[in-house]
Amino acid sequence: MEKNIISYDSCYIQASSSTVGNKEHFGPLGNYFDLYEEDEYFGCNNFQSAETEMARRNMNILFKKADISEEDISLCFGGDLLNQCAATNFALRDTGIPYIGLYGACSTIAESLICASVFVDNFVCRNALCMTSSHFCSAERQYRFPLEYGSTRTPTSQNTVTGAGAYLISRKKSDVRIEEGLIGKIIDSNISDPNNMGAAMANAAADTITRFFCESRYTQDDFDVICTGDLGFEGLEITKKLLESNGLYLSDKLYDCGEMIYDREKQDCNSGGSGCGCMASVLASYFIEKIKKGELSRILAVGTGALHNPCTILEKKSIPAVAHAVNICGGTK
Amino acid sequence: MEKNIISYDSCYIQASSSTVGNKEHFGPLGNYFDLYEEDEYFGCNNFQSAETEMARRNMNILFKKADISEEDISLCFGGDLLNQCAATNFALRDTGIPYIGLYGACSTIAESLICASVFVDNFVCRNALCMTSSHFCSAERQYRFPLEYGSTRTPTSQNTVTGAGAYLISRKKSDVRIEEGLIGKIIDSNISDPNNMGAAMANAAADTITRFFCESRYTQDDFDVICTGDLGFEGLEITKKLLESNGLYLSDKLYDCGEMIYDREKQDCNSGGSGCGCMASVLASYFIEKIKKGELSRILAVGTGALHNPCTILEKKSIPAVAHAVNICGGTK
Repeated sequence: MEKNIISYDSCYIQASSSTVGNKEHFGPLGNYFDLYEEDEYFGCNNFQSAETEMARRNMNILFKKADISEEDISLCFGGDLLNQCAATNFALRDTGIPYIGLYGACSTIAESLICASVFVDNFVCRNALCMTSSHFCSAERQYRFPLEYGSTRTPTSQNTVTGAGAYLISRKKSDVRIEEGLIGKIIDSNISDPNNMGAAMANAAADTITRFFCESRYTQDDFDVICTGDLGFEGLEITKKLLESNGLYLSDKLYDCGEMIYDREKQDCNSGGSGCGCMASVLASYFIEKIKKGELSRILAVGTGALHNPCTILEKKSIPAVAHAVNICGGTK
Repeated sequence: MEKNIISYDSCYIQASSSTVGNKEHFGPLGNYFDLYEEDEYFGCNNFQSAETEMARRNMNILFKKADISEEDISLCFGGDLLNQCAATNFALRDTGIPYIGLYGACSTIAESLICASVFVDNFVCRNALCMTSSHFCSAERQYRFPLEYGSTRTPTSQNTVTGAGAYLISRKKSDVRIEEGLIGKIIDSNISDPNNMGAAMANAAADTITRFFCESRYTQDDFDVICTGDLGFEGLEITKKLLESNGLYLSDKLYDCGEMIYDREKQDCNSGGSGCGCMASVLASYFIEKIKKGELSRILAVGTGALHNPCTILEKKSIPAVAHAVNICGGTK
């Protein structure tokens, strides 16, 4: 049987940046994000442009934090939820950075970290920029209803995070190392309700986490945190049960970025956060900060994506899902 | 200055497959494609499902030609034009193949060949499946108007190819070798007419081809063919002029897959073919066949993509474009 885990020899996160909207700022992780914007239009006249502007600003924060200019970026791996990944395409268009567009729904940030690390680790490029984003208002318009309709949502539906995350990867040693990656298989759990994406993605998450621990030289005891992104409350519960049926009892260290980003008691977030920007911003801020400070020594970040589009839902097709895992640890180890 | 061309040590195309629709079958390259389907619905009840079914059948032809089963595929790199890359996601959903979703519009096949070759060449995976597709009817519905409206199109607009291409890449020596890759930069030429994508992509194509010949150890004399995909008649003319202003006179060996796939005199194709499936099917059939037979010894395949979506057009934004180049040669050399 072929080994599927990718091991990186020397691959480090030099810097990361996060930008979020108002609701995320007032959530439990609010103080960890680099920037928040009160205006949901980000100074633009429509929500799609707002997402582009958020992604662009966040990329520039990364350049500032990493003390690098756009001319020195070898390659970008990025994508988002908008049709044809428009937010990332347009955020990059004035930069002249070579660009690989990705699509993996909410798993995109894990997908981009894995691919960028393969390129950097094998000297294909000197460094790589990873970036993804999502915006509540542009996602509602595209996937559900324009906000102006004032439609209500079901309890299992997730709240798309207004947020962007960006990362700079290179071989230069830093406090945060990317050690392993595992690319997920497409798994269809026969769920066709787009308001219950957590359930649609739970099997993919459980499959990738189980495969990871079957193959890796690390056991669950080596990890402080296993964080999915983004199953929400509903999906996380199902994933826990699926993992337990596989003999993996991770309850005390299994978290979900969509569960963490909002306060379920105080904020109206239904089943928690979702969207390309959710794990991207939570990982770039909270988790990387904790690893840098030594408060966490090793985490498994598992990006999960629901691979439908609004037409496949109208066709009553079930939702295929995928989950990619990234093993991230303190760089000094 | 950093070198951007990626050189592959040992990377070969083991097999390739192509499936097209009726119009492409009756075009000048009709006899080269593996399969054509008279029914534009491919036996389904809507065009999005038809594209998925075409991609699925074409993937299975590849498995047959390569004498491999889906369990032996290490990884798939793929994508398409549908929102959220639905055709590829759904074509793969019953296979259990680990999957990296890509989005690069018509450049997606070049993007996937470059990424797959990096993974295979550096022993990250044993083999990789590359696949992309497009369908005239699903693209018209998504980007322009549903066919039922019977709207006419402008002369510079391109005809989305109904076609799918798939490739199997590994390190095992074969008749067709992937030797180099160059990832394109996003370039915006200030064109905002979605019915003139050739013009929007011309600068990106010229930039990538010029950068390639500035950096590569190969000169234009080493190539039998430089083929873009897909600029169409309009975009190809502009690209020729841009290249000439850069001192590159390639007229006798510069072709475009969108120009080749239809007979401009006899078929109603406006400015030629386009779509993820155009270069994917023409390269997988015509060009790879010619390389296998020794009739071509080296080609530069330059996939070009227009990175807009219908909303960015309504916002009157100009169209960013990208072009990725792949240097493909006979394997025995």
